[in-house]
Amino acid sequence: ATASKPTTNGKQAARLRFEDVFETLRNEIIADFASKGMPEDAVEWYKRSLNYNTPGGKLNRGLSVVDTVRILKGSDLTEEEYFKSALLGWCVELLQAFFLVSDDMMDNSVTRRGQPCWFRVDGVNMLAINDSFMLESAIYFLLRKHFRQDACYVDLLELFHDVTYLTEMGQLLDLITAPEDQVDLSKFSLERHRLIVVYKTAYYSFYLPVALAMHMSGIPVSQGSFKPYDAAKDILIPLGEYFQVQDDFLDFAGTPEQIGKIGTDILDNKCSWCINTALAVATPEQRALLDENYGRKDSAKERKVKEIYEELDMRGRYAKYEEGAYKKIIGLIESVPETPTADGSPVLKREVFKAFLDKIYKRTK
Amino acid sequence: ATASKPTTNGKQAARLRFEDVFETLRNEIIADFASKGMPEDAVEWYKRSLNYNTPGGKLNRGLSVVDTVRILKGSDLTEEEYFKSALLGWCVELLQAFFLVSDDMMDNSVTRRGQPCWFRVDGVNMLAINDSFMLESAIYFLLRKHFRQDACYVDLLELFHDVTYLTEMGQLLDLITAPEDQVDLSKFSLERHRLIVVYKTAYYSFYLPVALAMHMSGIPVSQGSFKPYDAAKDILIPLGEYFQVQDDFLDFAGTPEQIGKIGTDILDNKCSWCINTALAVATPEQRALLDENYGRKDSAKERKVKEIYEELDMRGRYAKYEEGAYKKIIGLIESVPETPTADGSPVLKREVFKAFLDKIYKRTK
Ligand SMILES: [Mg+2]
Ligand SMILES: [Mg+2]
Ligand SMILES: [Mg+2]
Ligand SMILES: [Mg+2]
Ligand SMILES: [Mg+2]
Ligand SMILES: [Mg+2]
Repeated sequence: ATASKPTTNGKQAARLRFEDVFETLRNEIIADFASKGMPEDAVEWYKRSLNYNTPGGKLNRGLSVVDTVRILKGSDLTEEEYFKSALLGWCVELLQAFFLVSDDMMDNSVTRRGQPCWFRVDGVNMLAINDSFMLESAIYFLLRKHFRQDACYVDLLELFHDVTYLTEMGQLLDLITAPEDQVDLSKFSLERHRLIVVYKTAYYSFYLPVALAMHMSGIPVSQGSFKPYDAAKDILIPLGEYFQVQDDFLDFAGTPEQIGKIGTDILDNKCSWCINTALAVATPEQRALLDENYGRKDSAKERKVKEIYEELDMRGRYAKYEEGAYKKIIGLIESVPETPTADGSPVLKREVFKAFLDKIYKRTK
Repeated sequence: ATASKPTTNGKQAARLRFEDVFETLRNEIIADFASKGMPEDAVEWYKRSLNYNTPGGKLNRGLSVVDTVRILKGSDLTEEEYFKSALLGWCVELLQAFFLVSDDMMDNSVTRRGQPCWFRVDGVNMLAINDSFMLESAIYFLLRKHFRQDACYVDLLELFHDVTYLTEMGQLLDLITAPEDQVDLSKFSLERHRLIVVYKTAYYSFYLPVALAMHMSGIPVSQGSFKPYDAAKDILIPLGEYFQVQDDFLDFAGTPEQIGKIGTDILDNKCSWCINTALAVATPEQRALLDENYGRKDSAKERKVKEIYEELDMRGRYAKYEEGAYKKIIGLIESVPETPTADGSPVLKREVFKAFLDKIYKRTK
């Protein structure tokens, strides 16, 4: 049976409960730091960095660890189960904080989540590099403190190592494909776009939260010939790809009211699904115009690119892409066996993936 | 029996053999990266970063892992033992590469190991941040590939996590105490200097290589009431402190022929042992001159600071410090029991620490 969608109030309560756990974890991180004899100015610095960079986002990744643990259990979580799943959720948010603080420096960005990027805060500058490192290290401090005795401990460590590395690979690809200050559309392609999206976003945003929840729930690596983590990856990576294509499309087609910001992918020379789709079907004349107008920090040039997108029926192409992606993912979800295991080990459930897909399909923000 | 000091040729041969292992490891890292469908330009980028940033230093940290494993075994290593201890040594060098690439950005440095800092290489810039991340991630890739089946695997992972985090704490302390562009000697003190040195340098340079070798050699956490890793830490942290005080002193007193470079700590506003010692004993007049002349990127002002150091008998103070540190460390080394264990588990040896101390005591370069 599919759980009914949480109400807005239920969602808000879930978020508040999750945010409470952050307070506890941040206090643990800071208490450990202070216990090493660190002086007050250092303690204050670290606390400010943790508070500025970790909460404040949509928290979808972190909350999805808790949601997945609950779906896999099939009933309400105990206090301890809730705390530990929320802790894993905050570890995903810390990993994201590590990536975002550094990504903003590499992209020379101005704002993040409605406030100045951390490196632009007065007195921070290049110290933000080391602050990003400490956000990453806090993950392993928390895992050690709370999961060391658990059978899944090494699996959790390896999962974080693997996904971190894969995300860094995607970041490298993105940086050498679409430098912030140098337009060269000949480096772009739909295949390059897919690689960047899968490595830079899909692993840590979609696979990581679910795989963490699966490990915490005791789902083993093999159940006979069925490999639950491979099955999860086979669904969540295409789901993450679809999510990012949608994000790219909404950057072009969504209204500011819908997406809560003004799209800047064209101005910023982003290796977006839209430009790569356009490049794949453009006439030589259209291509020349794209080369001339893409990534130029000039709103007249941006408008020209948008005109070409409309000429090429980007909206129709996206609608077609979305239907195809949705059907493919539904098919993958339905191939998850859900058969009870001989040894009674916990079973992967289709509902885990449906919950993700429902949040994404035909969203307009 | 103390092993006789290796000859210059023996040292050179040891270094060449160790460097050969890097080729193998780098090829494994790159093969894994390429196997994920990464395009040629990304593969070339990563290979260039690994080659530019990992070898090329003195390799003392990496080589000391191999030396320590050999001392603990008490006889020559098999091919496999050599390879695995060298691999751990290269993991220390990768960790150091991660720290140095990012430290040079945070310090706005110009050269490193006789070549431009990586972020100053044409076309690199801020991408160096992500490159430093990948150097760190390569550590966990190598450990997983070669140590996953070993009993010490989790200990190795936790040791790298801990020491990385402690080093980042030291880096934070250093950055907020002695910003590259803002002189404020009231933030300095010998206690602050000690904290920075212990966290930023001693853990990863001295404790990490020995503790890795101890884990690989199968030395347990407890042997009755004796705690080998605590004992190692109690010796190696003061040893690292002594090493850094010496480094700070030689930056002032060593000739360029001795130290292979021109000291710049005074010009660069470094929180050095010399300035902290001077601040502790300066008259109000001398203190005013130090405030006026320290960290000013001006060679006349640097000369003035050096005059005050001489007035304050910095050379005599250092000689006294060195004798005290040496005696204290010798005493700690001699308290290592070396008693054979009831269960036959491998025993920590004084020779491990003597080998370090011999390399450092009264060195002039
Ligand atoms: Mg960015
Ligand atoms: Mg970016
Ligand atoms: Mg976007
Ligand atoms: Mg530096
Ligand atoms: Mg520095
Ligand atoms: Mg120095």
